[in-house]
Parts: sequence; structure tokens; C-alpha cells
Amino acid sequence: MTDIFARLSEMGLALPKAAAPAANYVPYVLDRGTLYISGQLPIGPDGALIRGRLGDDMDVEAGAAAARACALNILAQVGAALSGEWACVARCVKLGGFVASTPDFTKQPLVVNGASDLIATVLGEAGKHARAAVGVPALPLGAAVEVEAVFAVRA
Amino acid sequence: MTDIFARLSEMGLALPKAAAPAANYVPYVLDRGTLYISGQLPIGPDGALIRGRLGDDMDVEAGAAAARACALNILAQVGAALSGEWACVARCVKLGGFVASTPDFTKQPLVVNGASDLIATVLGEAGKHARAAVGVPALPLGAAVEVEAVFAVRA
Amino acid sequence: MTDIFARLSEMGLALPKAAAPAANYVPYVLDRGTLYISGQLPIGPDGALIRGRLGDDMDVEAGAAAARACALNILAQVGAALSGEWACVARCVKLGGFVASTPDFTKQPLVVNGASDLIATVLGEAGKHARAAVGVPALPLGAAVEVEAVFAVRA
Repeated sequence: MTDIFARLSEMGLALPKAAAPAANYVPYVLDRGTLYISGQLPIGPDGALIRGRLGDDMDVEAGAAAARACALNILAQVGAALSGEWACVARCVKLGGFVASTPDFTKQPLVVNGASDLIATVLGEAGKHARAAVGVPALPLGAAVEVEAVFAVRA
Repeated sequence: MTDIFARLSEMGLALPKAAAPAANYVPYVLDRGTLYISGQLPIGPDGALIRGRLGDDMDVEAGAAAARACALNILAQVGAALSGEWACVARCVKLGGFVASTPDFTKQPLVVNGASDLIATVLGEAGKHARAAVGVPALPLGAAVEVEAVFAVRA
Repeated sequence: MTDIFARLSEMGLALPKAAAPAANYVPYVLDRGTLYISGQLPIGPDGALIRGRLGDDMDVEAGAAAARACALNILAQVGAALSGEWACVARCVKLGGFVASTPDFTKQPLVVNGASDLIATVLGEAGKHARAAVGVPALPLGAAVEVEAVFAVRA
């Protein structure tokens, strides 16, 4: 699991800088080996937020790219939480994916696959997680996707 | 807790076959005694998905039946995770219920009761869980309800 | 952490009575040091539910007040779960905030801050939590906000 930078690089990706806490909540909490990651927004490598709504002004492919950006930010927070000790990641336990959707859009799983596929590609077997994917009418700042996560970590 | 098949049978129900993993996520993850079940859709005994939206083309009773179908699929995944060793179920800890709803529909609790009641009837005291129930504009494949779950299990 | 009543009093607040279980689900489940609190609605000190939808008939300030009411009810459930032994609270681990929103409303974080700020003010460092905040079309009984929580507790 220490070669996650190599795997990201092969995909043409790099880990973004973990966003700092913005308020009275924090990006992650580690409690007795369970690491809770706050809902991450699809902020791209250029720092721009990916906005949109599926079924309206964004297609599935673009939505999956947004979900992948969320997953990169999740990994950045995991790295920050573990001070870069990636060998401590035991498993990605769960992802919760929220997709900005019109009432007629029902392909949320294909969108959230953008996050699931990245996590599984980077972490291998340890990246296979439980998941829920649902539509929502609106997300913070007009984000297209928000993904939260739970990881199991070793001491 | 080993008589869950008897209790289901008394209710005229049977446990469905646990759906296989569809992608880079999996139907359940067991992490140190906590079993996370992926969001389950209301796929009936005939394999058909129960579609609809509360406040629009589906009433509360039909919504509760959909939630019950989600709960049956949750139990099927629990059974698969524990290789049928139901005595290992310590407790259903939490359900998260997402109900496809128009903006005017506000009886999500009555819908999700379809899942809560089934789990509590089948598992007894061990089936009493914490819960959140919210409306969403759209769910995967047009499903009427999606329910995710957390269980505590014994070694 | 035993002075939470003093801190609430300084804010002009008091802990409401913890709502009793309404059905086959319960307001909280304590599993091996992790306390799961069911989604709490914004029921004010007068017992009235705060209804509304952000982007429609409710502004951010009123939404944040609703989220704060949810957080007060969360604390009431924590107190009930621990029989008032507040020294057993190790940490608020996570909040999940659901904000009734029109498709155009994208300030869910400012609304859910009403809950985060209260928890952090009352619990101090132990109140800093991971969080997800999303919009939803509708909540139970027309509530403006629903917040669920996970706490870590000591024996």
C-alpha cells in the first residue's frame, strides 16, 4: 500500500493538498482504529470546484470524474490523518456518495463508481468497500457530488 | 436468533439470495465486529425492483413494502457475511433509510418503518436500532427506497 | 465536560427532555464504546417542530437555528444514553446533516454549522467532529433539518 503514489502517477493523478478545517468540524476523526473522513467535495487539481447537476447540465461521465475528484480528496485526508504512513491503512470500509440529481436521474451508481474505482485501483483489495449511493437536490456550493468515507487503520 | 427462518416463514417471507458484488464496491464489510451493509434496493422475491416516488405515484403502504424488501436484502447480506451463523448477530446497530420523495412528502418515518419493523420482528430485542430517515429526489434505477445498515457481530 | 449545563446556560439554552422511542427503532444504540444517535429533528424548547425549506420559505439564519435545535436534542439523547455521566463522553466523532433544500440552495454548510458550533461550544475540543452536509427535498413532518451523530464514549 506504500506505492499509492506510483499507482496514482500511472493514472496521471497526484494527491491534492488536504483541505484544512473550515469551522467547528474537522476533515477527519480517528477513533480507536476507525477513521471517519468528512464529506469531500470535487475540488480539482486546479482548486476549482466541479459544479453541476446530473440529469440537467452534467452527464454521467462528467459526474464520475467529479466523484473521482472527491475520492482523491478523501485519500489526501487519509494521508494527512496518518502523517503519510500509508502502511497503516487496513481497509476502506465504507463510502457514502451523494449525487446532485434531478428527480429523473437514476444512474447514481455509475457516477459514484468514479470514487469506488479510484479507491479500489489505488488500494487494491484493501480498497473494496461497502457503499450507499443516493441522489440529492443540492450540495454545498453547487458541487456535483459529495463523498464521505470510513477507513479501518492499524496502529 | 437462529429461528429467523421460522419467523420469516410465519410472516410468509423467505430470505432472498444475497446479491453479488457489482463493481469495485462490495455488499458488506466486516471490520473488527462491526458489519457494514451496502445500501440495499427493494428487489422483490420475483427479482423485480420496486420503483416509484412517494408523494407522486406511490402511497405510504407501498413505500413501506418497498422498505421491507430492502430489509430482507439486508438480512440476506448479513447471512452471507456470517455464512449463516445467525447466532453471531449481536445487534442491528443502525439503519439509514433514503426514501424517493417529492418535496411535499413528509412521512418518510412511516415508510422506513417497513424496514425497522421487519428487522425488529425477525431479530427481537437485538433488532432495535438507531435510525435516520430522509427524503431524496431520486435513487438508483428508480428505486422507491434504499436502506443501508450497520450490525454488531460476535466472533 | 461535566460543566455542559453551565455552558448551555451561558448560551441561554437548556437541555430538552430526550424524546422516547417511537417505534421499532430507538433514539440511540451504544455498541462497544461507540454511541449512535438516531436522526434528530429540530424540536424547540416549546415542543414545536421547526418546519421549512431552505431556498424557499426559510433563510440561512433560521436554518442554522433549526440545526442548533437538532444538536440540543442530540445532546439530550447522549445524556440519556449515559445516564447523565457526561465525563464518559470521549468525543463527538461525526455529524450527518440533512437540510431540506430547493435545488438552488447550496449553503448547507452554513446551516449545519448551527449544530457543529453548538456541539463544539458545549464540548470543547471533544466536540470537534467529522461531518457531511447535504440537501434533501423533504424531511419527516416537514422538518427543516435532521442531524444524526456518532460519539465515542468511555466505560
